[in-house]
Amino acid sequence: MSWKINSYLLQENQLLNEESLFFTGNGYLGVRGNFEEGLPIDYASIRGTYINAFHDIVPIEYGEKLYGFPETQQKLLNVIDAQTINIKLGDEGFSLFEGEAISYSRTLHLDKGYTERSVHWRSPGGKEVKIKFLRLASFKQKELFMQKVVIEPVNYRGEITIVSTVNGDVTNFTDKNDPRVSSGHARRLNLNKAFQQEGLSYVEVEALESKLKAACGTVHSISQKTAREVQVKGGRVEFSFHGSITDPIVFEKKSVYVDTIRHGEELLSSVEEIQSHLSTIDFDEALKEQEAFLAAYWLDTDIQIEGDPGLQEGIRFNLYHLLQSAGRDRVSNIAAKGLSGEGYEGHYFWDTEIYMIPVFLLSNPEIAKQLLLYRYSILDGAREHAKIMGHKKGALYPWRTISGSECSSYYPSGSAQYHISADIAYSYIQYYLVTGDIEFLKEVGAEVLFETARIWIETGHFKDGTFRIDAVTGPDEYTCVVNNNYYTNVMAKHNLKWASKTYKLFSDSEPGIVEEWNKTLGLEKAEVEEWLRAASQMYLPYEPELDINPQDDTFLNKQKWDLQSTPEEKFPLLLHFHPLTLYRYQVCKQADTILAHFLLEDEQDSETMKNSYDYYETITTHDSSLSSCVFSIMAAKHGYKEKAYDYFIETARLDLDNTHGNTKDGLHMANMGGTWMAIIFGFAGLRIKEEGLSLNPVLPARWEGYSFPLRYQGRKLRISITKADTKVELLSGEKIDIVLSGKNYCLVKGESTIVTSPVY
Amino acid sequence: MSWKINSYLLQENQLLNEESLFFTGNGYLGVRGNFEEGLPIDYASIRGTYINAFHDIVPIEYGEKLYGFPETQQKLLNVIDAQTINIKLGDEGFSLFEGEAISYSRTLHLDKGYTERSVHWRSPGGKEVKIKFLRLASFKQKELFMQKVVIEPVNYRGEITIVSTVNGDVTNFTDKNDPRVSSGHARRLNLNKAFQQEGLSYVEVEALESKLKAACGTVHSISQKTAREVQVKGGRVEFSFHGSITDPIVFEKKSVYVDTIRHGEELLSSVEEIQSHLSTIDFDEALKEQEAFLAAYWLDTDIQIEGDPGLQEGIRFNLYHLLQSAGRDRVSNIAAKGLSGEGYEGHYFWDTEIYMIPVFLLSNPEIAKQLLLYRYSILDGAREHAKIMGHKKGALYPWRTISGSECSSYYPSGSAQYHISADIAYSYIQYYLVTGDIEFLKEVGAEVLFETARIWIETGHFKDGTFRIDAVTGPDEYTCVVNNNYYTNVMAKHNLKWASKTYKLFSDSEPGIVEEWNKTLGLEKAEVEEWLRAASQMYLPYEPELDINPQDDTFLNKQKWDLQSTPEEKFPLLLHFHPLTLYRYQVCKQADTILAHFLLEDEQDSETMKNSYDYYETITTHDSSLSSCVFSIMAAKHGYKEKAYDYFIETARLDLDNTHGNTKDGLHMANMGGTWMAIIFGFAGLRIKEEGLSLNPVLPARWEGYSFPLRYQGRKLRISITKADTKVELLSGEKIDIVLSGKNYCLVKGESTIVTSPVY
Repeated sequence: MSWKINSYLLQENQLLNEESLFFTGNGYLGVRGNFEEGLPIDYASIRGTYINAFHDIVPIEYGEKLYGFPETQQKLLNVIDAQTINIKLGDEGFSLFEGEAISYSRTLHLDKGYTERSVHWRSPGGKEVKIKFLRLASFKQKELFMQKVVIEPVNYRGEITIVSTVNGDVTNFTDKNDPRVSSGHARRLNLNKAFQQEGLSYVEVEALESKLKAACGTVHSISQKTAREVQVKGGRVEFSFHGSITDPIVFEKKSVYVDTIRHGEELLSSVEEIQSHLSTIDFDEALKEQEAFLAAYWLDTDIQIEGDPGLQEGIRFNLYHLLQSAGRDRVSNIAAKGLSGEGYEGHYFWDTEIYMIPVFLLSNPEIAKQLLLYRYSILDGAREHAKIMGHKKGALYPWRTISGSECSSYYPSGSAQYHISADIAYSYIQYYLVTGDIEFLKEVGAEVLFETARIWIETGHFKDGTFRIDAVTGPDEYTCVVNNNYYTNVMAKHNLKWASKTYKLFSDSEPGIVEEWNKTLGLEKAEVEEWLRAASQMYLPYEPELDINPQDDTFLNKQKWDLQSTPEEKFPLLLHFHPLTLYRYQVCKQADTILAHFLLEDEQDSETMKNSYDYYETITTHDSSLSSCVFSIMAAKHGYKEKAYDYFIETARLDLDNTHGNTKDGLHMANMGGTWMAIIFGFAGLRIKEEGLSLNPVLPARWEGYSFPLRYQGRKLRISITKADTKVELLSGEKIDIVLSGKNYCLVKGESTIVTSPVY
Repeated sequence: MSWKINSYLLQENQLLNEESLFFTGNGYLGVRGNFEEGLPIDYASIRGTYINAFHDIVPIEYGEKLYGFPETQQKLLNVIDAQTINIKLGDEGFSLFEGEAISYSRTLHLDKGYTERSVHWRSPGGKEVKIKFLRLASFKQKELFMQKVVIEPVNYRGEITIVSTVNGDVTNFTDKNDPRVSSGHARRLNLNKAFQQEGLSYVEVEALESKLKAACGTVHSISQKTAREVQVKGGRVEFSFHGSITDPIVFEKKSVYVDTIRHGEELLSSVEEIQSHLSTIDFDEALKEQEAFLAAYWLDTDIQIEGDPGLQEGIRFNLYHLLQSAGRDRVSNIAAKGLSGEGYEGHYFWDTEIYMIPVFLLSNPEIAKQLLLYRYSILDGAREHAKIMGHKKGALYPWRTISGSECSSYYPSGSAQYHISADIAYSYIQYYLVTGDIEFLKEVGAEVLFETARIWIETGHFKDGTFRIDAVTGPDEYTCVVNNNYYTNVMAKHNLKWASKTYKLFSDSEPGIVEEWNKTLGLEKAEVEEWLRAASQMYLPYEPELDINPQDDTFLNKQKWDLQSTPEEKFPLLLHFHPLTLYRYQVCKQADTILAHFLLEDEQDSETMKNSYDYYETITTHDSSLSSCVFSIMAAKHGYKEKAYDYFIETARLDLDNTHGNTKDGLHMANMGGTWMAIIFGFAGLRIKEEGLSLNPVLPARWEGYSFPLRYQGRKLRISITKADTKVELLSGEKIDIVLSGKNYCLVKGESTIVTSPVY
């Protein structure tokens, strides 16, 4: 089965998208898949290297700045470029857009952890060489970005020059008219240092306002004796190798990135230390480490699909990029575009909790834990944000942030999305249910649950025996600032219920910690009781005639958008209609109530959920990449197997086919998690609830079968679904009860597997 | 009775406010009441001279720019400063903040049309002089701003220097954190020319982006022979007079402003021509013209109150500033701050139609007509705006504008206020009802009524036998983007009804013009019928239990804001709470439903309106200066005579007492109109409807009586209300039927007046 993503096209737009698709990262570093030698000057390109969470602070401008609008935002910075390598044969510079590319391919090796570009090139003057460019971002040593170039003579033997650059003179990408990318503040780095010493090309930069510093120190090696020359030009350190090519030349570039968020102030010594530690490692050895790391990753993560190799490739592609993007050092998270581009300015959204943590939680729970610890690290920021938004207590997580303060400048589909606090709470609850880690709940989770629960009491109010939440925005960004958004209310209910449940759990088992909370957080029993009262009286909009849950109090009174008559070029609607126009209609950018029905399916009966699905499907554009996977999951639940598959295909191919037209700005990370979710929660029907783990598998008609591993409460499971049967194995850990297609089973390791009759 | 506004205070804040209170204008020009010699450098001051509608185009920055957000806005520019006159006695410069101000006063002469500042000053070195500064903006020659300085020796006889400056090196005022004033783009003028020739100090400037040009040419005269010297320093032309003072010196400065909106491209010749035309006019002669002009104005406008001279002064102050601010050349209108300051960047809002046109309409209908013609002049801009907002046809007037395009960068309380189109339509209808000018309705009004009516069909939809309008904002800016705002719906109903009525009126009487409309506007009978259908089925929210009109579909479901417990320093709420917080509560910035009840009182029965009044009064902060007058009017209607008076006092003293804390940024023009409205529509209970004119007078307990003139359908009326009786006289014109306190009367000139029994 395929572990390779290949490309053979040299078209401008394709290359721009491939800069994202072939990016190289490890959760700390992300390097876009740019060509080492660059592109012709008139080709569009976003050349970028990112350190997760490394940001500057930039002012937000407003025509009319109202109270509480954030004055600044954080912005992920494009940092020092160490990708650049230029090659000259005699006086002819290597470029695939001059002379002739006799052959060209690039490959991302999902099992080996590197990318490769192979070319057979004939220069305009007829010189022929074969060149291979390899690169990796080490999963073992997060600071390490490595490149290897192999140049093989074909008909040319003669003078050759290799110029390797480490460049601190870089800017961010901007576009004034696309709200999904940054509109300004391209140049945000000062050059601190740029020099060459003892074989190290060193560049250090400092962000203008945040004063965060980053550095890159590169060492080179080359397989033959050559003349060397160093030039420092402004922020660029250029290392040139002049020799002659007769046999293949192997050139390696080992770049170490550090920053003051993680490495303290002495960046040069950090670089030197790490380089010295790595001094014996060459590219091939680093590759072995990658392979070992990935073998373990895939063992816990890989979903195997029989009967559709293309799709298999797509799913692995997504799971690989999730791994490449997930911060796991408590100061970073997963940006909307991961580390693959600058879309949404490197901000972290609810995407992590609702679309990405589930993947890690059930395959690599340690990464999930790190992501939750990041949220804990910004709890004070969320408390501060709550104050700004007029609340006396509690924590309101910012809609988009890097270091903890709100970065949303358009609050109707930003800060108004209060649900993010409930989403984060949900994720802590799921973490507890999946891992059973009660210590983590006590030390970290409880405080988050309490502080987020408080926000709902602050925001909502009791009226006529119901608890109601006004003036917030649900996930669907085509309907903003409404009363009693179903999603928000039901998620808040869950948050409140679990905050109260957690408090009571520890009141019984560990009164000491409860006393401490009472003291440090000012909690009182009456407050906790109010949480439960609000939860149990939570108003959940319901329309009896249609037997559906309205998205909010007035949603169903509006006109329906005529999607049939909307020309294709008018999508996504947000780029072609004023928000007010959108808000005036029943039209959804993405799953909202449907998502709530997935996350908390026990809050409604199946018929209502199915009717709601049917209703919202006709008015949802899926203009958000977070939509299709949810529709796929719920289609599977409601028995719409074909639809489930069609939506699933949308998610699996979204970036590979650039179906949203903006893959150039980075990969749609949430959707990538969504692919996994569509299989695990959709086709396999997995649910993790307080009562335990349950599965309800179906098999898409086009597949022979599929199987996947699961981590659950310290155990490893393997689930295989084929046309013939469904098998659930306990690979390690204590025996455990599960529910499969509605029946209870007890899994015991080695003793038994479960075989049921085949699913339809 | 008093025609003078006096001040005797030399405190920094007071002076800053008085720059607005003592501004000098004539609808074309506005010059803030700055001191000729300036203030100490550490004193806050907004030194400004404005030409109505003279603007630049500046970019609007957005953190996230969504589709349809305006990319630029217009900004009234502070233009060339001709106020500046500096005086030196020997080597001591005149400043009231050095040495001693033995006496100081300033006076605005409401009946004579000028301001005066008188000082008796002792220099630090003991030199004593008396100085008088007079200034006026001519009501006869709109381009003319004149100053006169009289310097009288007391104990000092000796060397004196007068330096008069015309300065093109000026900037606008900015404040990043107050959404009510501009946040940036202070310097928007290039200097084109600055020179002195043949006694003319000439400065010409050009706006950076709009390329509009303005010029000021000043000539000086002085009562004694002195040495003269000219210096041009950058954009400043300084004319110095060196002499010695033995007798009083009279110095005059005659400045003529022109601009390329009105005067063509040859500004220098325009200035020369006007100056030459004015060559024989000195300050005293200009004063006589002012007085004659004002005599006529007051005859048609003055409200006389017996028993409260302070209030009398306040009302006249307001009516005078309205006259000073009202553009009457079809290219300009009345800015929110008139020509008195830079608040709201010189933009025109609905304030004109709802709060200011009524004053002119019933006293100086020609000015009202000019203001309506301005709206007609930007009809194409409104059509363009409609397109941007997603409408296929119709005209949606921009919420704030100068030259016709939308300048609102925060649409929830900007572009979403669709009601402005109905407000403008309402004003056209009122103009027709008051003047009976059917020609104007045909030539101008009809097209506006049709095009605005179309917007409601575009925006609303039929559902369950009602016509509903979703996702708009009513006048109350503390509740934004709602469904079925009562105000909007009832005003839209009126707009639709009258568009249809107008079409039918001319279908019968003048089918030719109707055919032309059908052709040029693409009108069809079916469309007109749909207008009437929408009007008659218009959904007007009503809550039977409380017997009130809810402000919108969900308003009553929200929590009530606890105004009692909100500390005083937290007002206005918009400066202390995030908009989302405000939107979450039942709390009103200003009259909304109550205003609708005033404008269209026949749409509800009295009981519902009274209950609504009682309800909304408890949750309205009057943070908007447009609120109190409406509450006053409706309090009078509902028999709350004390309340009516209290609210009225709020309006009458708003700027004089700086009760809103931002008089420095300019006067609250709408409120000034509101004062008049509170008397005429409130106490006197005047209504103009299709059925004719009616009055329902009450007399505030603290007054002996009040009287006022009215212009109505070509007639002049005079109404006097005293404790003894109510008198309505027809001063000129044909006999006419009116309704007084519910009874029908026929007024005939000279033959009869009406005397009724006294009102309570």
